[in-house]
Amino acid sequence: MSALKVAIAGLGTVGAGALKILHTNAAEIAARCGRPITVAAVASRDRKKDRGVPLDGVTWFDDAAAMAAEADADVVVELIGGSEGIARKTVEAAIARGRHVVTANKALLAHHGVVLASAAEKAGLSLNFEAAVAGGIPIVKALREGLAANKIRRVAGILNGTCNYILTTMRASGRSFADVLKEAQDLGYAEADPSFDIDGTDAAHKLAILASLAFGTPVDIKAVHVEGIRHVSSLDLQYAEEFGYIIKLLGVAERLDRAPDNQEGGVLMQRVYPCLIKPDMPLANVDGVFNAVVAEGDFVGRSVYEGRGAGAGPTASAVVADVMDIACGRKVATFGIPVGALKTIPNMPVAAHVGEYYVRLLVVDRPGVFADIAMAFRDESVSMESVLQRGRNAANVNVVIITHETQEAPLLRALKRLQANAALVEPPHMMRIEK
Amino acid sequence: MSALKVAIAGLGTVGAGALKILHTNAAEIAARCGRPITVAAVASRDRKKDRGVPLDGVTWFDDAAAMAAEADADVVVELIGGSEGIARKTVEAAIARGRHVVTANKALLAHHGVVLASAAEKAGLSLNFEAAVAGGIPIVKALREGLAANKIRRVAGILNGTCNYILTTMRASGRSFADVLKEAQDLGYAEADPSFDIDGTDAAHKLAILASLAFGTPVDIKAVHVEGIRHVSSLDLQYAEEFGYIIKLLGVAERLDRAPDNQEGGVLMQRVYPCLIKPDMPLANVDGVFNAVVAEGDFVGRSVYEGRGAGAGPTASAVVADVMDIACGRKVATFGIPVGALKTIPNMPVAAHVGEYYVRLLVVDRPGVFADIAMAFRDESVSMESVLQRGRNAANVNVVIITHETQEAPLLRALKRLQANAALVEPPHMMRIEK
Repeated sequence: MSALKVAIAGLGTVGAGALKILHTNAAEIAARCGRPITVAAVASRDRKKDRGVPLDGVTWFDDAAAMAAEADADVVVELIGGSEGIARKTVEAAIARGRHVVTANKALLAHHGVVLASAAEKAGLSLNFEAAVAGGIPIVKALREGLAANKIRRVAGILNGTCNYILTTMRASGRSFADVLKEAQDLGYAEADPSFDIDGTDAAHKLAILASLAFGTPVDIKAVHVEGIRHVSSLDLQYAEEFGYIIKLLGVAERLDRAPDNQEGGVLMQRVYPCLIKPDMPLANVDGVFNAVVAEGDFVGRSVYEGRGAGAGPTASAVVADVMDIACGRKVATFGIPVGALKTIPNMPVAAHVGEYYVRLLVVDRPGVFADIAMAFRDESVSMESVLQRGRNAANVNVVIITHETQEAPLLRALKRLQANAALVEPPHMMRIEK
Repeated sequence: MSALKVAIAGLGTVGAGALKILHTNAAEIAARCGRPITVAAVASRDRKKDRGVPLDGVTWFDDAAAMAAEADADVVVELIGGSEGIARKTVEAAIARGRHVVTANKALLAHHGVVLASAAEKAGLSLNFEAAVAGGIPIVKALREGLAANKIRRVAGILNGTCNYILTTMRASGRSFADVLKEAQDLGYAEADPSFDIDGTDAAHKLAILASLAFGTPVDIKAVHVEGIRHVSSLDLQYAEEFGYIIKLLGVAERLDRAPDNQEGGVLMQRVYPCLIKPDMPLANVDGVFNAVVAEGDFVGRSVYEGRGAGAGPTASAVVADVMDIACGRKVATFGIPVGALKTIPNMPVAAHVGEYYVRLLVVDRPGVFADIAMAFRDESVSMESVLQRGRNAANVNVVIITHETQEAPLLRALKRLQANAALVEPPHMMRIEK
């Protein structure tokens, strides 16, 4: 069979990694696909940089979208990133010209996934994106094919290596968020502008994609409740540990059959936030830059996937696997089912979340403050499971509360009322406990 | 598109599970495949038993091989088990009649995988077997497709839930092997004749299949060194814990570039045995009936897969996913690459294994015995890292040794020499330490 010709848009870390795999493992890849995969074209602004592999005979383009339209290629691999601009134009041009697309671009899929999938589907093309979620872990394939016989109840994951590295290091060292963030930047684990990672945006993109795959629903990034990790202090990590918990930034998408208003067909709650989990949970021991995903299906039960979530090798491994699926003629609907069969599931806001909560209140140490707290909780029928107050020598003390199971809305009302209390030195710190 | 017609051979736990999934999730399955999957025929001796789903219009056969040849079906699902007899005949008949095959039969694949794959390939048919290894975990798909861009260095797994349940329970309770085995039998986790599981045969079948997928080599069950868990005592579990280890029955297949005799292209070592691992290893905390697999690739690095390894739901989930791949028209070579491209890799015997070892010697407590042990080790240049001897009040004492890294052959010679020593009350206990 003739070679499959690939055009690669973007030769940064991942692009260079893909070139390296296609070169290093060319024989194995050709054996698996029954045909070789050749790089026909690349688009990159910097032609001089050494990518470590020979690029003789490869056509260079400055403009990725022009390459997508003009190059002699069967597949366009988009590794530029960003939900708009040149990345989007490149993918659109590739589909318009009848070329398959492989992308690692979670932002693009989170914002325009349905439209692009629809265009690819109409043209009979593959739009593969294994590398967009959890790097080297083949979780997209697992949800789209491996677990396809199941109704998925819940998918949860550690989806951002930067945040996981920061929280892991803060916990191990007792150092502050700012200090560890600085170190992560120096080590190249965090960007100069880290907000995309630490504010949860990146994890939210990935969660929205996972939710679409798991529940057969159109990607809806706006339905994801997002909180980042800026407000997690080393104090919170310590208190959590005293209560027997570990703090992780999780993305969780869950189908609930019985919504508070009993919607037929269930509701979907999607959220990304730092939360407390028990150390014996499958995600609790996933440390550093590793990613992991737990999927729960009605027949398969719980299955867990763990691996490197970023970096040249793991991400490029996923990109090349996607290209190999195309080389082998294996097709699958972009989000597991045809776009026309995707079903919107009503969104359940996080205010309707039911669970246990961690609350930390820094208060002035004077008589009556604790009674104020207790009454605010009582008046909203939020029941306390554990309370910890320590350090009576200082002017201010931390009161830490673990609640019994409650709805989020009344808890937020109680905290809002307390925020007006002059004894509170700073706004309340609240995190959910995930089971 | 017209329905995909399935004939199911064997309606035991897994067969009934597959019927249930195809019935319960019929709408989701049809949406994902773009066509329904219908059960056209079943073969089972017991027609009266209630399988919990309507079987109207389904053709019954007493003889599965006859069904495979005669039924009006696109796919034959073989869930009978066993490497010979009716299971083998059924698969052969299905392929001969141009029907795709889905099987959960690891023994059949371990013994006849290459021949059957070759027959299927020549006929242009799929031979899918996700359910044969690690039940609900889509590890076959991960190795065959998701990690296909990598050269795999090592694949290791907890592949037998019965053994993992027994070892987990022995460790937690301090109870004896025989006692816990009895309990596992009462709970239905172990068969009346448990030897297939506890002697490591079942895990060896699965490991041989994983090794073929990971390394592109013909399945070779005879190349697998197999030891079961009968000889693991609660004492061993306790001593291991004192030295900071957990004992698990692992299957490990590893490609070593530098064999002792420097074979070009590397050598492959495949083994199943109880071994000691550190608690921070990814497999160490996989407890009870769960299975898990670690795969290490040259680009993806380490990835870990965990889930239920047996039971109606998880195994049938994998069976139906395999059928869905066929319904969607997704094809893949049985072992990831065409049979003609499978390459034999020289087998490295476990005697050439290099690593650290755990040795326990029950000896008569009299002067000079320890010197005998020390000299036997010294004469073979096996160096001790830690030694533990306790309980000087009893007539016999256990001497427990952790060695430094050594080849296995000299250690075995030292142990053989000690076995001739009258002070030894029973043969030496030896287990490897895996990293």
